Amino acid sequence: MTGYRVAVVGATGAAGSTVLRILEERAFPVAELRALASSRSAGRTVRFAGEELTVAEVSEDRLRGCDVVFLAAGAATARQFAPLVARGGGVAVDKSSAFRMDADVPLIVPEVNGRRLAGHHGIVANPNCVATPLTLVLAPLQGLGLRRAVIATYQSASGAGTRLVDELRAQERADAHGDAAEHAVYPHLLHGNVVPGGWSMEGDDTEEEVKVVQETRRVLEAPDLALSITTVRVPVTIGHSAAVWVELERGASPQDVRGLLEAAPGVRVVDDPVRQLYPTPRDAAGQDEVLVGRIREDIGRPGGVALFWCADNLRKGAATNAVQVAELAMQRRDARVA
Amino acid sequence: MTGYRVAVVGATGAAGSTVLRILEERAFPVAELRALASSRSAGRTVRFAGEELTVAEVSEDRLRGCDVVFLAAGAATARQFAPLVARGGGVAVDKSSAFRMDADVPLIVPEVNGRRLAGHHGIVANPNCVATPLTLVLAPLQGLGLRRAVIATYQSASGAGTRLVDELRAQERADAHGDAAEHAVYPHLLHGNVVPGGWSMEGDDTEEEVKVVQETRRVLEAPDLALSITTVRVPVTIGHSAAVWVELERGASPQDVRGLLEAAPGVRVVDDPVRQLYPTPRDAAGQDEVLVGRIREDIGRPGGVALFWCADNLRKGAATNAVQVAELAMQRRDARVA
Repeated sequence: MTGYRVAVVGATGAAGSTVLRILEERAFPVAELRALASSRSAGRTVRFAGEELTVAEVSEDRLRGCDVVFLAAGAATARQFAPLVARGGGVAVDKSSAFRMDADVPLIVPEVNGRRLAGHHGIVANPNCVATPLTLVLAPLQGLGLRRAVIATYQSASGAGTRLVDELRAQERADAHGDAAEHAVYPHLLHGNVVPGGWSMEGDDTEEEVKVVQETRRVLEAPDLALSITTVRVPVTIGHSAAVWVELERGASPQDVRGLLEAAPGVRVVDDPVRQLYPTPRDAAGQDEVLVGRIREDIGRPGGVALFWCADNLRKGAATNAVQVAELAMQRRDARVA
Repeated sequence: MTGYRVAVVGATGAAGSTVLRILEERAFPVAELRALASSRSAGRTVRFAGEELTVAEVSEDRLRGCDVVFLAAGAATARQFAPLVARGGGVAVDKSSAFRMDADVPLIVPEVNGRRLAGHHGIVANPNCVATPLTLVLAPLQGLGLRRAVIATYQSASGAGTRLVDELRAQERADAHGDAAEHAVYPHLLHGNVVPGGWSMEGDDTEEEVKVVQETRRVLEAPDLALSITTVRVPVTIGHSAAVWVELERGASPQDVRGLLEAAPGVRVVDDPVRQLYPTPRDAAGQDEVLVGRIREDIGRPGGVALFWCADNLRKGAATNAVQVAELAMQRRDARVA
């Protein structure tokens, strides 16, 4: 066999269709690809490696014999099918929140804690699309005594799925034509707006805020790391951004931080504001690296450092990370077999 | 005389045209209104109180005899004309940054430090369009021992002037029609983007960040208040927003903070996230109050409080504040004369 039997569940969604693209781009060795989705999307077609594939409804039968199954279809689907994949000897790479805080399931950002993949039992979780880039930016600073970060997010519509992207585009078109923009998917107009909500609430925090805090701590293996966060949706199609302030026990300089980030895997420093060079989601879209800039001393806290990052939430925030996890998992399996 | 002789310099700009509207809305007693601007805009017309006024080029002659002159045309114009107005016995209400840190010129947000107007010598400065709403939100918390705030902004295009608003709209239209969006006024596309720059730099900070820190401290009379800030432009037409975290010496509860903000002038609490009620710039646009919500304990700092505010940057952030300042100044003058 020249490759792996791969299934993508949620192949028509924002994250799943990006998984297909990343598998091609990274030349993941695919012997067979099964494009699966809910009954609602079954029958649609997707393209992979120059061929048109008809999407089938996900079922136990259709997952049988797969080496890798990418689950990009929500937590309920993940809970239903991931254990079946694991029992069948495959690896379920889950993009949902279903298993992220499950002690038996490693939560992996390969550049940060890839070694923890060793503990998997057939299911590997991927962090939320804010937590993944955030861990890439914070991990290099752990050696400086990272004790706290404050994070304000600027999250794109695609993080909420293709339906919100479609709704945002429809609002933009309506407005450009002088018609009234409408919303149905989302509780507010997103076009021309900034929305500090729209997620389910866990007490006074959004579910998203709680996820980012818990998952970031878990990936960084820093259970006491203090993380303050406000999550906000902005009218951007692809690319999440965040303004971040870090407190470091050893009072590092911005130059120290810049040096560590320049050397960090998965991170690219873009930082020359006088020349108008800083990360933007438009520049991050289509990239696999987290762009980091505006690295400077915190104007309000000598010894603290402020920065701003942007990342493609569908790629490194979701699909790229998942495919990297699958690559690592297959390498480990093949090494064990050999 | 049934009112005051008023001039608006920059009458065709975003802030100046809003001053005209607010003067009408608040029924400011106007005996004569002179609409002035640079030579570039002279000859255009504006509407005021049902009449069409032809905009004249600003000059010393045309400002002579004015009781109140609103300067909404940049710092250079303010530096040139404000001292002439003061010398002529009028009051120059300046929206620019020219005099904000001048010890002889009070920097006024009426609800916060209106009493400081007493010290004016014919020129009164208005804070920047982020600093004004920020002081309205922070002032009520000073009694709780406010010692630090961290602020991430989401600033609208109109804060940079009508040319950026026009450019953003043109980008939206181009995109809706499938054409390539272009930019010339601004260093990046703003449509579908988030831009953590575009301001002049003062060292590693944007000029905007430095202004907000200095002006907020001055209005609050809190020279040691620690303020961390990252300023960011978002594709919104009107309405600045900010995610804010405050540290209070007396470890107040979110309920304490909410109570103080509910009682504060110029502030309206909009805070029921489960029902999708929180401030958005679309809801703040057209309002004179700062909307505040998402008031909660800082998830990363017990005893700290997080919140989110939105304000109409052209109204309370600029024109409404300026007209309120003029109202106060005329009341004081009339009281002295009587």
